[in-house]
Amino acid sequence: MQGEDLKSFRQWGSKTPGHPENFVTPGIELTTGPLGQGIANAVGLALAEKHLASRYNKPSHEIVDHYTYVILGDGCQMEGVSNEACSLAGHWGLGKLIAFYDDNHISIDGDKYIAFTENVDRRFEGLGWHVIWVKNGNSGYDEIREAIEEAKSVTDRPTLIRVTTTIGFGSPNKANSYSAHGSALGAKEVDATRKNLKWSHEPFHVPEDVKTHWSRHIYEGSALETKWNKMFTAYEKKYKDDAAELKGLIRGELPAGWEKALPTYTPEMPGDATRNISQQCLNNLANILPGLLGGSADIASSNMTLLKMFGDFQKHTPTERNVRFGVREHGMGAICNGIAHHTKGLIPYCATFLVFTDYMRASMRLAALSESRVIYVMTHDSIGVGENGPTHQPVEHIASFRAMPNILMLRPADGNETAGAYRIAVLNTKRPSVLALSSQKLPNLNGTSVEKVEKGGYILSDNSSNNKPDVILIGTGSELELAVKAGDQLRKEGKAVRVVSFVSWELFDEQSDEYKESVLPSSVTARVSIEAGSTLGWEKIVGAKGKAIGIDKFGASAPAGKLYKEYGITVEAVIDAAMTVC
Amino acid sequence: MQGEDLKSFRQWGSKTPGHPENFVTPGIELTTGPLGQGIANAVGLALAEKHLASRYNKPSHEIVDHYTYVILGDGCQMEGVSNEACSLAGHWGLGKLIAFYDDNHISIDGDKYIAFTENVDRRFEGLGWHVIWVKNGNSGYDEIREAIEEAKSVTDRPTLIRVTTTIGFGSPNKANSYSAHGSALGAKEVDATRKNLKWSHEPFHVPEDVKTHWSRHIYEGSALETKWNKMFTAYEKKYKDDAAELKGLIRGELPAGWEKALPTYTPEMPGDATRNISQQCLNNLANILPGLLGGSADIASSNMTLLKMFGDFQKHTPTERNVRFGVREHGMGAICNGIAHHTKGLIPYCATFLVFTDYMRASMRLAALSESRVIYVMTHDSIGVGENGPTHQPVEHIASFRAMPNILMLRPADGNETAGAYRIAVLNTKRPSVLALSSQKLPNLNGTSVEKVEKGGYILSDNSSNNKPDVILIGTGSELELAVKAGDQLRKEGKAVRVVSFVSWELFDEQSDEYKESVLPSSVTARVSIEAGSTLGWEKIVGAKGKAIGIDKFGASAPAGKLYKEYGITVEAVIDAAMTVC
Repeated sequence: MQGEDLKSFRQWGSKTPGHPENFVTPGIELTTGPLGQGIANAVGLALAEKHLASRYNKPSHEIVDHYTYVILGDGCQMEGVSNEACSLAGHWGLGKLIAFYDDNHISIDGDKYIAFTENVDRRFEGLGWHVIWVKNGNSGYDEIREAIEEAKSVTDRPTLIRVTTTIGFGSPNKANSYSAHGSALGAKEVDATRKNLKWSHEPFHVPEDVKTHWSRHIYEGSALETKWNKMFTAYEKKYKDDAAELKGLIRGELPAGWEKALPTYTPEMPGDATRNISQQCLNNLANILPGLLGGSADIASSNMTLLKMFGDFQKHTPTERNVRFGVREHGMGAICNGIAHHTKGLIPYCATFLVFTDYMRASMRLAALSESRVIYVMTHDSIGVGENGPTHQPVEHIASFRAMPNILMLRPADGNETAGAYRIAVLNTKRPSVLALSSQKLPNLNGTSVEKVEKGGYILSDNSSNNKPDVILIGTGSELELAVKAGDQLRKEGKAVRVVSFVSWELFDEQSDEYKESVLPSSVTARVSIEAGSTLGWEKIVGAKGKAIGIDKFGASAPAGKLYKEYGITVEAVIDAAMTVC
Repeated sequence: MQGEDLKSFRQWGSKTPGHPENFVTPGIELTTGPLGQGIANAVGLALAEKHLASRYNKPSHEIVDHYTYVILGDGCQMEGVSNEACSLAGHWGLGKLIAFYDDNHISIDGDKYIAFTENVDRRFEGLGWHVIWVKNGNSGYDEIREAIEEAKSVTDRPTLIRVTTTIGFGSPNKANSYSAHGSALGAKEVDATRKNLKWSHEPFHVPEDVKTHWSRHIYEGSALETKWNKMFTAYEKKYKDDAAELKGLIRGELPAGWEKALPTYTPEMPGDATRNISQQCLNNLANILPGLLGGSADIASSNMTLLKMFGDFQKHTPTERNVRFGVREHGMGAICNGIAHHTKGLIPYCATFLVFTDYMRASMRLAALSESRVIYVMTHDSIGVGENGPTHQPVEHIASFRAMPNILMLRPADGNETAGAYRIAVLNTKRPSVLALSSQKLPNLNGTSVEKVEKGGYILSDNSSNNKPDVILIGTGSELELAVKAGDQLRKEGKAVRVVSFVSWELFDEQSDEYKESVLPSSVTARVSIEAGSTLGWEKIVGAKGKAIGIDKFGASAPAGKLYKEYGITVEAVIDAAMTVC
C-alpha cells in the first residue's frame, strides 16, 4: 500500500475501496463490511487452524500454529450471525481466537443505548468465552498487551477483549459522536484534530521514525517465514506424506485422479434421492480430497451430509471432519467463508433445506463476492418436500440464486448429474456452488453423464434430424424425468422431440454461441420448460412463443404427489404445453 | 377444530398443515415453523400491546391489557434471529412477554450437546431478562403455575421460563430421543405409549371428562369477552375519540380521505432522493394513520425513516412511534410480522439498505406467506450507493423479490411514484411491499402520478400514433430518467418513442390483457429496458428481440456517476440499444 493508494480511497480501480475486499487488496484475508460477518469468518479461520494443527502437527513440529485476531464493533454485536458463530466458538473451545470488541458505544444512529443495553460480557460468559475488559482503549497500550497475554494463557476458550474506546479519538468536536463513524471529518475538523494531537506533518506524510518503527515488521516477518520454512523442511524429512498432503492443501492442488472417485450411474441402477447420491459423492470425495470438511445446520440426517469414515469435529476431537453447526445457518455460511480462505485447499461444504438459504443469504452473497469455494448442499429443493408445508418448500430460491452474480446454481436430475455437480463445485475455485437436491427418489436417466454437467445445458435425447426438432422440452432436477416421459409420449405420437437437461444456467451461458445454438437452435421456437419453482427468467430460454411450467405461488402441506398434481407439474402438463406451442 | 381435522393432519386442504399457518387455521396468530421466528414475532406482539396500552388505556380503563406467551425450543435458541429479538425485548423492558423455553436437549441431529453447550440462562440474564427454571416440566404443573405467577410479578423485564422436559414423554422406547421430533411414533410405539400412560381409549376419542374440563374455556372466554365489551362501552362513553380511533385500528379501517395526505409533485419542483420523498410520505401518513409505526436497523438517518412528530418507542416512552431496532435486520423483520398481526390497523414499516434484505429475507418470506402488511423501506437501491462498494450495492435483490410470491416489489422513479408506492403499500392489507428507494437525487418527471402506480406499468410519454411506436423504452426507479432522456433524444432524431414506467411487475401482471396490450402492444418488439440491477426476468418484458440494460455482476467502490458510466447504465446505452432493436 502506497500513499497514492490511500489518496485514492474509495475511487474506481483503487486498492482502497470503501470496505475491505480480499480480491482487490493484498493482505486482506476476507471481504467483510456487512456487520457481524467478520467475527463469524474469524470463527471459521480459528476452526481451520485448530483442525489443521491437530491433523498435521507432530511432537516438536508445531507447523500449524497461529492465533486468529478479529475486531468487531457494537453493530456486529447486535447482529444475530455473530451470536450464532460465537456460540459455536465457545462450544468448540477455540482457545486461539482472540476478539477485540471495540466498545465505543456509538453506532450510526447515535448512542448505542437507544437500542443496545444488554450486558455483552455476561452474554459472552454464557457463550463459554473468557472475557476481559480494557477500560482505556484509547491509550492504554500496556493494558491491551496484558489482555492479549491473558487471552493467550486461556487455551480452552476463546477470549473477548472488550476495549472501551472513544470513536474519533483526538477530534475535538466530533469525537464520541456518530459523525465520526462513516463520514470524513472535513478540512476544518481535520485541522483541529491535528492541532489537538500535536501532529504537524503534511497530509499523507509518514515521518521517518514512524516508518522505521513499522518497517521492522518487514524484517520480523521475513525472519519468521525463514524460521517456518526451516521447520517445515525438518517436518518434511520426518513426515513425508503428511508434509506432501499439507503442501497440496496450502497450494490448493487437487490430488491426481480425484475425479475418478465420483460415482457413476446407469439407467438400470435403482433410482435414489439426489440427497442420497450427494452423500455418496461427499463420502467418496472425502477419501481423496484431504481438504473436504463440513456439515449441516442440525439436519445432517435429512441433508445426508455425514462423512461415515470420520467422527465429529469437536472441542476434544478437532481432527475429525463432520462439523455440527446446530440450527445456525447464517453462522454456518460465514464460518465456511472463513474456512475457505484460511487455506486454498480446504473445501468447506454446508447444508440445510434449500428454503433456509434465506437465513444465510448474506453470507452466501459474500462467498460469491469474495470468490470463496464453498459448496452449499441444499436438499428438499421444491414442493417435493410435501407435508412440511409452504414454510419449508422453496419456490423462488433457485431463481434468486440465478440472479446473484458469481455463484453457480446447479440442480442435478439424477446420480450422474449430482456427481457432475460435485465435480463442477470442486473445480470452480473462485466461486461457490449451490446444489439443489431432491428429498424424493429419482430414476437414473438415459443420456446423463458426470462430464456433461459442465456445459450447463445439453441434449439428453433427440429423435429429430438436422437440428430441427418439432419441440424442445427442457427440464431441471426432479422435473427432468417428467420432460423425458412427456418426450417419450410425444414421440409415440409422431413428434420429433428434443429433451434438454438444463442443470445450470450460468454454465450454459458461458458456452460458445455455436454450442448454445446446437442445443437450443434459434429456429425452433416451440419450447417447453418444466421446473418446480418460480418461472422468473425462464422466458429467456423458452422465448415468447414457448411455455414455462412452474410454480409462482407458495406451496401447501400435503403429500408431494398430490402437490405436483394440484400445481400442474405433470407429464400431462408438458404434453399439453408442447401440443400448444408446436 | 374437529376430530376429522386432526385425522387429516398434513393433508391437502386440511386445517392441520405440517406447520401452523395463520391463513389456514382459525386461532393461529402467526405462521411460524422456521426456527426462531415465533419468539421474535412474540416480541412484536408484546411491543404492540405495550404501545397500544400506553396510548389508549386511561385510569381505571385498562382496555389493552394482555400477556404474550410463546414457546420456543433448543433450535430457536440457536438461531441468531431469536437473540436479536430477545435483546430488544430486554432493552424495551417488555414485562408482559413470557417465554417458555422447552429445554428438552434434543434437536433433529440428536442431543443438543453436539452443537449447543452455552449457558442459556446466563445469556438471557445478559439480555436483560428475568429467568426461571422449572426442573420438572413433564409433570410439575404446580411449578409451572408458580413460574407464571412469578413472571407476572416481574413487570420491568420479560421472563424466560426454562422448562426442562422429556421429548416424547410417555413413549417407552422413543422418549428422550430425536426420533420423537418430526416423525410419527408408528403403530407399535403408539401402542406401547398408550399402555405406559394407561390410556385405554380409542384413537381420536376424547373422553367426556376431558371434554368437560377443556370446554370450560368456551364459557370462560365468552365471559371475558362480555366483560371486555362492557368495559369498552364505558371507555367509549368517557373517551369518545380514543375509542373511535382504537376501534378503527382493531377493525383495520383507514381514516376517510387518508390518501389526500400523500404529497404530490410537479416536474417544476426540485428533484430529490426518493428516500427523502419517502420520509415526507411517512411523516404525512403518520399524521393521519394512527397505526403507522416503525423504524430502521440503525440507519434511520440514511433510510430517512424518522417520524418528526414522535419520539422513540422505548421502555419508558412506549407511546412513541419511532422504533429503534439496532443493527438487527432479521429480528426487525420478524418483530414487524408480530406487530402486523397483533391488530389489523397497525402498519409496521422497517428499513435498511436494500442489499441488507439478505439479512432478513426469511422474515420477509414469512410476511409474504402469512399475508402480513409490512412496509419495507429499502434505500440505497443500486450501484448508486457508490463509494461503500459492492458489499453495499444491491444487484440481484429486486429480481429476487420479483421471484417471491405474494410480495409487492415497487421501485418508484420520483416524488409522485414514491407517494403512489406508499398508497399501494397501505392499501394492500394482505401482502407486504418492498419499496426500493434511491440514495441519490432524482428529478420529478413529466407524466408520473400517485394513482398510476397501481397499474404497475404505464405510459409516461409517447409521440407515436395508433399504438405503434418505433420503440418502447422501459425504465424503473432511478433509471426511468435515463429512459426519458434517451426518448427525448430519439424523438429529435425522428423516432416515434414510447416511454414506459415499470414501477411494479406484480401490479402490471394483475392488469387486464387489454390494458397490458395498450401499454406493451405485442406488435412492437423493439423494446429496451433499463434498470441498474440484474436483468434476470426482463426478457419476459422486452422479448427476444428487445434488449435489457442492467448489471449482472457485482459493483465496485467509486463515485456513483463513475459506476453508472463503467457499467454502461447511461442515456447513450439506451439510445444505442434502441437504434439496434428498431
